[in-house]
Amino acid sequence: MTQPAARTVEAPCTTTYLPEGVDPARFADAIDRMREAIGIANVHTDPAVVRAYDDQFPVTDGDEFRGGAVVWPASTEEVQAIVRIANEYLIPLHAFSTGRNLGYGGSSPMVTGSVLLHLGKRMHRVLEINEKLAYAVVEPGVDYATLYRAVQESGANLMIDPAELDWGSVVGNTMDHGVGYTPYGDHAMWRCGMEIVLGDGEVLRTGMGGLPASEAWHLYAGGIGPSIEGLFEQSNFGICTRMGIQLMPRPETAVTFAITFPREEDLAAVMEITLPLRIGMAPIQSVPIVRNIVFDAACVSTRAEWQDDPGPLTAEAKQRMIDGLESGYWILYGTCYGPRWQVDRYLEIIREAYGTIDGSRFETNETLPLSEGSRRAELLNARHLLNTGVPNRHSAAVFDWFPNAGHFFYAPVSAPSGPDAATQFADTQRISDAYGTDYLAQFIIGLREMHHICLPLYDTSDAQSQTEILQMTRELIETGAQEGYGIYRAHNVLAEQVVETYSFNDHIQRTVNERIKDALDPNGILNPGKSGIWPRRLRDR
Amino acid sequence: MTQPAARTVEAPCTTTYLPEGVDPARFADAIDRMREAIGIANVHTDPAVVRAYDDQFPVTDGDEFRGGAVVWPASTEEVQAIVRIANEYLIPLHAFSTGRNLGYGGSSPMVTGSVLLHLGKRMHRVLEINEKLAYAVVEPGVDYATLYRAVQESGANLMIDPAELDWGSVVGNTMDHGVGYTPYGDHAMWRCGMEIVLGDGEVLRTGMGGLPASEAWHLYAGGIGPSIEGLFEQSNFGICTRMGIQLMPRPETAVTFAITFPREEDLAAVMEITLPLRIGMAPIQSVPIVRNIVFDAACVSTRAEWQDDPGPLTAEAKQRMIDGLESGYWILYGTCYGPRWQVDRYLEIIREAYGTIDGSRFETNETLPLSEGSRRAELLNARHLLNTGVPNRHSAAVFDWFPNAGHFFYAPVSAPSGPDAATQFADTQRISDAYGTDYLAQFIIGLREMHHICLPLYDTSDAQSQTEILQMTRELIETGAQEGYGIYRAHNVLAEQVVETYSFNDHIQRTVNERIKDALDPNGILNPGKSGIWPRRLRDR
Repeated sequence: MTQPAARTVEAPCTTTYLPEGVDPARFADAIDRMREAIGIANVHTDPAVVRAYDDQFPVTDGDEFRGGAVVWPASTEEVQAIVRIANEYLIPLHAFSTGRNLGYGGSSPMVTGSVLLHLGKRMHRVLEINEKLAYAVVEPGVDYATLYRAVQESGANLMIDPAELDWGSVVGNTMDHGVGYTPYGDHAMWRCGMEIVLGDGEVLRTGMGGLPASEAWHLYAGGIGPSIEGLFEQSNFGICTRMGIQLMPRPETAVTFAITFPREEDLAAVMEITLPLRIGMAPIQSVPIVRNIVFDAACVSTRAEWQDDPGPLTAEAKQRMIDGLESGYWILYGTCYGPRWQVDRYLEIIREAYGTIDGSRFETNETLPLSEGSRRAELLNARHLLNTGVPNRHSAAVFDWFPNAGHFFYAPVSAPSGPDAATQFADTQRISDAYGTDYLAQFIIGLREMHHICLPLYDTSDAQSQTEILQMTRELIETGAQEGYGIYRAHNVLAEQVVETYSFNDHIQRTVNERIKDALDPNGILNPGKSGIWPRRLRDR
Repeated sequence: MTQPAARTVEAPCTTTYLPEGVDPARFADAIDRMREAIGIANVHTDPAVVRAYDDQFPVTDGDEFRGGAVVWPASTEEVQAIVRIANEYLIPLHAFSTGRNLGYGGSSPMVTGSVLLHLGKRMHRVLEINEKLAYAVVEPGVDYATLYRAVQESGANLMIDPAELDWGSVVGNTMDHGVGYTPYGDHAMWRCGMEIVLGDGEVLRTGMGGLPASEAWHLYAGGIGPSIEGLFEQSNFGICTRMGIQLMPRPETAVTFAITFPREEDLAAVMEITLPLRIGMAPIQSVPIVRNIVFDAACVSTRAEWQDDPGPLTAEAKQRMIDGLESGYWILYGTCYGPRWQVDRYLEIIREAYGTIDGSRFETNETLPLSEGSRRAELLNARHLLNTGVPNRHSAAVFDWFPNAGHFFYAPVSAPSGPDAATQFADTQRISDAYGTDYLAQFIIGLREMHHICLPLYDTSDAQSQTEILQMTRELIETGAQEGYGIYRAHNVLAEQVVETYSFNDHIQRTVNERIKDALDPNGILNPGKSGIWPRRLRDR
């Protein structure tokens, strides 16, 4: 552990925000103790430092979701020390990995005044890369770009599964049920073996990690008794300080395809063709996406190129995008992996299957290489990078779709069926039009379910735009829930509403989560309110 | 709910065993209330009925692990009613699905006198078969044979993944981390969506099951907040009354191969060849097993055919088995699935890879069909049935290896590596020899781990044999733990020893499980002691 600074009192506590019920003296004492524990340079109350952790895409004004201080532990032991001090002083902690989480609240806490526990700041080591058994072990600060570089430098013939943007934390993304696009796209399925700091500061190692001499901690997720790793995902029951992530052996060949479909109404047919090709994990081995033209356009252009009017995009504007990018209204991206002979046969089967849709066009990164120079080639080859394990931030261009653009997320889960896709598209397009915002989305297709990832875009600098996007997203959630479409992940400000929709048996899911919360974190220290789970102490506030 | 019998008091309470601390009058009152709740015909204390639930493979004498009564609920509502009554009277319940669980304690409880809750007796409906989305929904009494028939009768082009023996419960096997041998062999990975009766009698639906209108309950295991399904596996936190199990679309072609390796010392090389062929999920798509000749022999013959002496099998006897069955000391079984062109290429790659081991022989169910008539063909084709989703009980012949044979399980988990396999084989063979028992085992090879499934066989009618097999298995567990090999599932009598080996941070895993137990089942009603998890009320007994 870091040596305590000789005289910590020289750094005053300068926070703007205090947790409710905590007086300034108590907060200052806790901060002092934290400085003693992990060093004065790693505990900050200066607003200039702490405000950098505010949500970059805020939708509410005022003092909501603001941290009171930030701490930067360097090790599991330092995390434990912070948790123990927070228990003594009853100070809420808000732990996060790298804190990107754009559209889901960034690194901001549910409880204003919380001490932000920025794990990734100093805990960003790749602890192990095991080529033979194909896994890596990472600390919370390891983002996809870092993991990629570490694997490359190790020379291991392994492929990572990056999230959409390379700056995401492997631990953070996985713990929040994030997905990727290779055959290992369901990150929760491929994580294995966690180290968790519990609410009382004790350390738990899951599964085989409980057996001191075992080398199977990151190989087998079970152990004896219940499998509790899932318990720590999207919750506030513990802080993950290391995690195993299994990696795919790099295939001999990988070819990425893009299939364009001209009409909005092609969507249902695209989904019905996709399901049987996908559910057997072949010939579509990757996690395919079906994107609309507006999303594709936003990756390679700005809105102003297609329409001046800030109102809803007209049919003509969308057609201009389709023509300008030599594309369709929907574009399906996926990748085939394996020996060349197999990849070629799979591509042929896929091409033929979608060829039944009138006007569809099939290209691959081989028929349309980046060197071809078009934006269409740029889009396809950016997906190829992602689908072959090369993290990048090509899609981050959507943040420049118009000045000061930020986005929310509306992400319902359903069967990957044509009727479900068509219903969701119709609802979302209608509600987006009513609010004058663009419908910009992709369907991410797992084996038996799909995530409909919509990015409601708004002007982050405009209070009215903030208010409207929040209202619109609330309306989307309400409409979807009535039709059976549940949300898999929610922004802080939406957590309560989303949890309300999971109402079976008088919200028994919430009741069970609360009971577990109180059992594992009796003082209610860790991320109170995360995913709508409040500890007893703050439940009836 | 079933109408209560008019006068339940006519059936007296005749139990032989009472839970500690429960006097006969209280037990009788509770039984009376249960009769009122689910009908007199479904609650039994008559020893003639209750004793049928005793462990068929006992290793201890006397009154351990005996039920006091048995109840047969017909619905989730009836399970709730029983749980509520048990709470009122503080009577421990021991819930199980079909109760086979041979070698792991059968249907017997940890706490003598518990009321046995035999879910499968009347809850054995296949609630749904969805061909398009490839899943089924089952009650706890549905065994693999029943699910197979239901899928066949539905006409759905789906393949189930059976456990080794067809009489196993789909829910029971999955909840206890059982495995199968097709690409869907990791049952815990493919279950999705549970209904759980909690310790207080309330009903929880996991994941998307919490959203009343959702049709994705059995499609996506997440939801909002933590994924808690794993919490109910191998634990006593709730009673699973329905579960979704995802099914593989039936492939166009499936060919099963058997590869024999002549020498005991070939094991390490076999494992090293297997790992890279398996880890990429192709060309070995199934969960392959590597069995020793004794296990194979026990499926098609009795011990007396090979050796008269009851002592350890001699090298000569094992060679007689190898010769007599035209086999090797190790036999690897696996299956390729898919279009014919792909299956043929995969088989070719596999044959070539193992061909490097001197004396190995490669056969398939096509080169060695059942009609060939040999026991070797019988063995291969029995595996083909299992690996193509046709449940059977071919392996149950091991129970006739010698008169009154029963077995225990020693099942450590490790990396699927040559050195690990060789170490475990050497240890287990040495200790088995010392106790004069046969080493009969198979390695089941997942993607990054293997289960070494050893069946210590003994004479169930002989008290000394019982004592010795228990002692030997304890020695195996101890030896394995020191070398880092943890057990994934344990017989009642071994649960405490196995949990002891998961000792990291002063047995924090146990502490966490106990905290969750007390939170979800405060009266400690459900399966107390299961997987070594004791409720507060019984912890310090």
